[in-house]
Amino acid sequence: MQMSTTASATKEAKLWGGRFEESVTETVEKFTESISFDKALYKHDIMGSRAHASMLARQGLISESDADSILKGLDEIERQIENGKFVWRTDREDVHMNIEAALTDLVGEAAKKLHTARSRNDQVCTDLRLWCRDAVDNILSRIMRLQVALVMLAMKNEGLIVPGYTHLQRAQPVLLQHLLLAYVEQIERDAGRLVDCRVRINFCPLGACALAGTGLPIDRFMTSDALGFTAPMRNSIDAVSDRDFVLELLSANSITAIHLSRLGEEWVLWASEEFGFLTPSDSVSTGSSIMPQKKNPDPMELVRGKSARVVGDLVSLLVLCKGLPHAYNRDLQEDKEPVFDSVKTILGMLEVSAEFAQNITFNWERIKSALPAGHLDATTLADYLVKKGMAFRTSHDIVGRSVALCVSSNCQLQELSLDELRSISPVFDEDVYEFLGVENSVKKFSSYGSTGSECVSDQLNYWVAKLGING
Amino acid sequence: MQMSTTASATKEAKLWGGRFEESVTETVEKFTESISFDKALYKHDIMGSRAHASMLARQGLISESDADSILKGLDEIERQIENGKFVWRTDREDVHMNIEAALTDLVGEAAKKLHTARSRNDQVCTDLRLWCRDAVDNILSRIMRLQVALVMLAMKNEGLIVPGYTHLQRAQPVLLQHLLLAYVEQIERDAGRLVDCRVRINFCPLGACALAGTGLPIDRFMTSDALGFTAPMRNSIDAVSDRDFVLELLSANSITAIHLSRLGEEWVLWASEEFGFLTPSDSVSTGSSIMPQKKNPDPMELVRGKSARVVGDLVSLLVLCKGLPHAYNRDLQEDKEPVFDSVKTILGMLEVSAEFAQNITFNWERIKSALPAGHLDATTLADYLVKKGMAFRTSHDIVGRSVALCVSSNCQLQELSLDELRSISPVFDEDVYEFLGVENSVKKFSSYGSTGSECVSDQLNYWVAKLGING
Amino acid sequence: MQMSTTASATKEAKLWGGRFEESVTETVEKFTESISFDKALYKHDIMGSRAHASMLARQGLISESDADSILKGLDEIERQIENGKFVWRTDREDVHMNIEAALTDLVGEAAKKLHTARSRNDQVCTDLRLWCRDAVDNILSRIMRLQVALVMLAMKNEGLIVPGYTHLQRAQPVLLQHLLLAYVEQIERDAGRLVDCRVRINFCPLGACALAGTGLPIDRFMTSDALGFTAPMRNSIDAVSDRDFVLELLSANSITAIHLSRLGEEWVLWASEEFGFLTPSDSVSTGSSIMPQKKNPDPMELVRGKSARVVGDLVSLLVLCKGLPHAYNRDLQEDKEPVFDSVKTILGMLEVSAEFAQNITFNWERIKSALPAGHLDATTLADYLVKKGMAFRTSHDIVGRSVALCVSSNCQLQELSLDELRSISPVFDEDVYEFLGVENSVKKFSSYGSTGSECVSDQLNYWVAKLGING
Amino acid sequence: MQMSTTASATKEAKLWGGRFEESVTETVEKFTESISFDKALYKHDIMGSRAHASMLARQGLISESDADSILKGLDEIERQIENGKFVWRTDREDVHMNIEAALTDLVGEAAKKLHTARSRNDQVCTDLRLWCRDAVDNILSRIMRLQVALVMLAMKNEGLIVPGYTHLQRAQPVLLQHLLLAYVEQIERDAGRLVDCRVRINFCPLGACALAGTGLPIDRFMTSDALGFTAPMRNSIDAVSDRDFVLELLSANSITAIHLSRLGEEWVLWASEEFGFLTPSDSVSTGSSIMPQKKNPDPMELVRGKSARVVGDLVSLLVLCKGLPHAYNRDLQEDKEPVFDSVKTILGMLEVSAEFAQNITFNWERIKSALPAGHLDATTLADYLVKKGMAFRTSHDIVGRSVALCVSSNCQLQELSLDELRSISPVFDEDVYEFLGVENSVKKFSSYGSTGSECVSDQLNYWVAKLGING
Repeated sequence: MQMSTTASATKEAKLWGGRFEESVTETVEKFTESISFDKALYKHDIMGSRAHASMLARQGLISESDADSILKGLDEIERQIENGKFVWRTDREDVHMNIEAALTDLVGEAAKKLHTARSRNDQVCTDLRLWCRDAVDNILSRIMRLQVALVMLAMKNEGLIVPGYTHLQRAQPVLLQHLLLAYVEQIERDAGRLVDCRVRINFCPLGACALAGTGLPIDRFMTSDALGFTAPMRNSIDAVSDRDFVLELLSANSITAIHLSRLGEEWVLWASEEFGFLTPSDSVSTGSSIMPQKKNPDPMELVRGKSARVVGDLVSLLVLCKGLPHAYNRDLQEDKEPVFDSVKTILGMLEVSAEFAQNITFNWERIKSALPAGHLDATTLADYLVKKGMAFRTSHDIVGRSVALCVSSNCQLQELSLDELRSISPVFDEDVYEFLGVENSVKKFSSYGSTGSECVSDQLNYWVAKLGING
Repeated sequence: MQMSTTASATKEAKLWGGRFEESVTETVEKFTESISFDKALYKHDIMGSRAHASMLARQGLISESDADSILKGLDEIERQIENGKFVWRTDREDVHMNIEAALTDLVGEAAKKLHTARSRNDQVCTDLRLWCRDAVDNILSRIMRLQVALVMLAMKNEGLIVPGYTHLQRAQPVLLQHLLLAYVEQIERDAGRLVDCRVRINFCPLGACALAGTGLPIDRFMTSDALGFTAPMRNSIDAVSDRDFVLELLSANSITAIHLSRLGEEWVLWASEEFGFLTPSDSVSTGSSIMPQKKNPDPMELVRGKSARVVGDLVSLLVLCKGLPHAYNRDLQEDKEPVFDSVKTILGMLEVSAEFAQNITFNWERIKSALPAGHLDATTLADYLVKKGMAFRTSHDIVGRSVALCVSSNCQLQELSLDELRSISPVFDEDVYEFLGVENSVKKFSSYGSTGSECVSDQLNYWVAKLGING
Repeated sequence: MQMSTTASATKEAKLWGGRFEESVTETVEKFTESISFDKALYKHDIMGSRAHASMLARQGLISESDADSILKGLDEIERQIENGKFVWRTDREDVHMNIEAALTDLVGEAAKKLHTARSRNDQVCTDLRLWCRDAVDNILSRIMRLQVALVMLAMKNEGLIVPGYTHLQRAQPVLLQHLLLAYVEQIERDAGRLVDCRVRINFCPLGACALAGTGLPIDRFMTSDALGFTAPMRNSIDAVSDRDFVLELLSANSITAIHLSRLGEEWVLWASEEFGFLTPSDSVSTGSSIMPQKKNPDPMELVRGKSARVVGDLVSLLVLCKGLPHAYNRDLQEDKEPVFDSVKTILGMLEVSAEFAQNITFNWERIKSALPAGHLDATTLADYLVKKGMAFRTSHDIVGRSVALCVSSNCQLQELSLDELRSISPVFDEDVYEFLGVENSVKKFSSYGSTGSECVSDQLNYWVAKLGING
Repeated sequence: MQMSTTASATKEAKLWGGRFEESVTETVEKFTESISFDKALYKHDIMGSRAHASMLARQGLISESDADSILKGLDEIERQIENGKFVWRTDREDVHMNIEAALTDLVGEAAKKLHTARSRNDQVCTDLRLWCRDAVDNILSRIMRLQVALVMLAMKNEGLIVPGYTHLQRAQPVLLQHLLLAYVEQIERDAGRLVDCRVRINFCPLGACALAGTGLPIDRFMTSDALGFTAPMRNSIDAVSDRDFVLELLSANSITAIHLSRLGEEWVLWASEEFGFLTPSDSVSTGSSIMPQKKNPDPMELVRGKSARVVGDLVSLLVLCKGLPHAYNRDLQEDKEPVFDSVKTILGMLEVSAEFAQNITFNWERIKSALPAGHLDATTLADYLVKKGMAFRTSHDIVGRSVALCVSSNCQLQELSLDELRSISPVFDEDVYEFLGVENSVKKFSSYGSTGSECVSDQLNYWVAKLGING
């Protein structure tokens, strides 16, 4: 059994090649390359290099003319990349080396000074923090768009009462608006988490160099400012070693994803024949290759399903970082694909959820006709008895017996006669009928945050104002 | 094959039993009970009931004397629990029912009014938020204790230079203090995450009832204030359905755990024969049942290992919540054990890490004698050349060749003669020797956040002041 | 800020204490102890010690009378443990030390010879493999019980047609028996995985000692045989280092848990008011503390929910083992709680699912009356056209148009007149009505494994015979 | 705030379009497409279609000439794909629709008959099972190559003694061969898991159609045979609903990944300056962009790191499947990327580990000179005392005291004089020196599976024979 090892003839591009006599094998080169995915950082890498070059010039570490060459070269490279004309080379390993080597090809000697007082270790952290900061901003804007879509959907469906569930059993009647606003609340907290995460992302590792800083007279505050960071990170070892900002972003995304998976589940349920509460338009449904009658809510199934990969990405990164000694380890190269995938997925989930929300119709008639089932007004009846002075546990028992009577007579609570009710408790009076039936029931809710029409209307107004929606 | 189903004779305790004709089977009772673990919430459950009863009385929903009975009864129950005299009954399912039923046993009819305008759904969320809030405060205080221990360890080891690593290869010399402060920085961000998480935890679900609120004239702001919450939650459906505050806490703990796993790994490495950089005292080591010469750093191995369960707890809760429709589902009962375990584990990890930090000795002599290996001063030499005006990439190449010369001559950089150095580059001058050797090397670092003595001293002073340590 | 460290006065019990001058602190002792959970291994630990002592005696490494003392002492200790009279001591760390120390208390000097040619490293692996082997056998028997319950439920519901779903949209009619047998198939594969896992568990690490084996003339084949293992493990380093057998068991459990979560989801759906396909008996449902009309399928919600902890346990163990060097590390102590929890949970999930299956009623009338909705016979109609010689894609299109006609006329396919059908395609003939309607539709299925009555009947007979059920 | 929704004009390609009046939006099309990744299944999709077409013809469901057209068309499409000339169209959604539509473009009407008695639901499962079967075979062959590389590395290093560790503390001397064979054992079990998994993968879902089977006279045994499956799956609902075969493959890969992460950790440690036990060749190392003296074992760091994504992939799929009702749900589309990524990653990890093993040198001199430290012969000394008749616990204590004497005298056990030893125990005799020193120590090991030279030599021969290596 023979195993051969072909060395690739790519010594040129390895900027660390000085002491090395042999090139890495093709297998290793292919296994260790990151250019196939980290080129996504190009914009932030160039941004970082611009700030770094300007600082080096102001500090006298490179000449103004070198800085000019570098800046012009970077402009040219950015243009090439955006025009699709830049050639990414695997033998140049990663985005940093590709850009620096291309810069050397373009502007020559000056380019060799760009890496002064910098290492790929602080460079990649800087790029990644800039990328994550943009990602957070994009996700925040998509969250807001979904909130707008949900609030507008609520506005279109004023007054619609739907069953509220616990254990997927009908429990109490609620306004659809109330439920839609519950989703809005949940993703508002998701936004809050991202805002907090952004604060911690926004510190600048540049100048930490390999791990220990440098003896050259750089100005870390200047580069930090130029890149819009709050401040340079205080400890250079920490700066290059930690990926907690990515873990935090992926945690935040995971929680958002779980929220959206619940929305997905609910809308898939509601679109079923059995619930029949909502119908997606053809523009957000798909059909079946074999069953022509089907109309499937695929986008929300995939929203539910894609939550899985967001969780998987988080787990990958947690496992990755577990037990790594300081400072940089090559393992950390594996931080990028999970964060890219997590952000791309969550953006898609938010966008598609908003689009779905814009393209569904709630089936008022079907919902209305289904509402009487399930004795949704039972707790309102219990409140009635409490208002009459009965202890809650006793009222609960009496309502339980009233429901049992309905079940055996196959009727609704409001269809029980006053005599029947009084046979269970003498406390019942004529005014009980103002508490029965789902419409009455909903009207009676009055506590802050409850499903009562006024309470919900207050909430809706709050969100309309906050989101800047003009009806 | 016969399968029997024995119903347990426990109908008494089921407060929802009204309409039910048959008791649940023993198997189901055992499988669905939560009292074995949710009794940990007793203090917060009683706290919530106190606030709720006082509010009910002020709103005229129960009489003052009923409220008095309830409050006295709750005091008595709390005392019994803390004295270990309270009997927890599985047939009473959970902590809420146990306490309410015991209250009924104690004070009779008044107790039946406590559950007015409340449901176990909002009750358990309230308890859990109160519990998590305390947990956050406890973790924060342990983080601070670990920071103090690390800073004091740094103070004890002023001036000690250790190798800084990348890829676990020696890279640059750093002050031990610098590395210890990197840990301090990392867990400071962990603390920041918890502080942010606490803000989101601290909203009050009480009064959301089952899911829709209530028609009884409760005052949710009063209970929220009494329990120290910021405000009542705005949407009752959201209030009882979501566990994102637990997910956030478990995410924060996971990131902390990963940080500590890295500390664990590092100190286990450093305690090995091969590194030999630190020795734990006997009070934080264990021996071997078969190898009498062993002295194992078990506490830090377990810190590393226990990070796994903190991650597992988070994953459990993410999987749990995935795809659940609104509002409450019984699945959510499973939220408690992961959060209890995560918090208990992270508290232990922080405490033991602090104790380990207080009980280790860095082996100055051993470290010092090991330092020359690895050419740790190479980057300082590159900085030297850059300062002389050489382009960085060129200097990198020259240093590479200098190191290669050392390797072939089996010597250190500072042992090369000026002639030897000049044979590689004429730029080298007599002053180069001020840059060689690890002590010189460390002295040369000067950038903000770097390992230079003054920079580190500034950082140390910052932390000493911030943590209120008086030397 | 003061931090004190109290050493516990427990030097007696530490069997490795020889070289140690100071006891471990209470914090460390509490953090590192395992007796609170690993006492669950007592039976297998004693079993292993019996085999080991007998082997030592036969090899002449201890005297027969010493072996006798040891065996009698172990009997006594086992009796004490099972009677609840054994005192577990935290200062004796773990189950191994507790039992060995108690044995020394009981029989004196002979006990000190038991640990000859053994280490806790191989001892704990042996215990854990024996425990896992029993766990597998228990799970296998519970899987079979659930299969029996599902098959018996199928037998009780012969002929019941239910909607088959894709995308939770009604797709085709299927026999309920067919669906129930799908669950049986799935957990049969779960059983297969466990059987395979058991083969790999069943090798004996005993005699690997600390990691390198021993120079004493032990007979590893004898102990392996005595404990029912297939053979001793071939490599002593491997024997004490690896926990892949636990990872495999936890993976198998996770897949089973996911299967059961799907069953749970389905039955929760089917128990909803909207589906209304099944009703659990009171003996497997619970009620609401505030909504007296509720009847919740809690056991299946918890089956769904508890799948989360089984997955979390697996993740914990994967994270735990990641990146550990050889051989034993103290981290591995953390392997036990996840495996104990995973096994306990899966046993409960299987048991409760079986009990639920025994206590549900399918609502024939409700299901029958709901069946016409959804055009479940559409694919049968497409098959009809193909049988008439039409290309499938063409037939799919024609059926699509027929369904569209039904939707606009608000009728079923079988209610379309032959003229109406012929207006769409002249291929339709009088015999088309034998293919329409769900009963006809189900009758037409004939392929192997399909929902046709005979096919399903064959499958049912297969399982009845395989599981040894006598009707 | 305006949100527009542009429908894409792609109605042509939707084979399920019959009843639909509006095309899906671009956002939805982009979010729900799978062609960007599922085209990886093309070979297996075509293989399945060939078998299906041949069966349809033999059963008279399509004509022989239609079958011929289809088969020729499929050949042409396969050729186009392999030549890179096939145009994949996103508007044709997935690999199945792309190939079927291209076939229609090529051969016209006959192509419309291919989907007779088939659905994408059974088609995709069939493809995926075929793909996974190949994946297993590839992984098995890579495992074997790594085993060969490890065994050959062992053969090259006969007689080299290295420290064996527990708690990363030196414990006992072992032969390097013994440790290398421990890795071989571990991945041999990984192979065993894959072999078992393959058995469960290898059943044929084709003919299950959408979920219920078909009424057309297909022969599922014929297609199953043609595709090399063991048999058709027994239950059509199960066949299209379950992904447990993927979960099992990803579990098996995760365990392998964890094994390799441990190898990675160990070799990274051993390559450090502090251990210095091995040196990778330049062909499998990389350098530093700023520290020219560095030589980093990146491939093994990435092997360790990439274990994280394999675990993340498994978690994704577990989360994905959790709580899904039967039968097919669109969520399941998300099964492919994790399995593709997991398999690709594990193949790379195995390949690179083998290549690394072929390109490292163990530093005999360095290891030899480091061996005396750590009292590795202590347990051999304990065995000596036991052979002299001493109780093990007593011998352990005496060895402990001997080691303590060494520590205080700063010497090795073999350097203690007989008098010194006898001052600790009179049992010591002149022959004790045959047991001291690591070479003597290793020689004394004799138990099955131990590190004794003969034992290890037996093991090595076993593997050489089993793997067919000829020296």
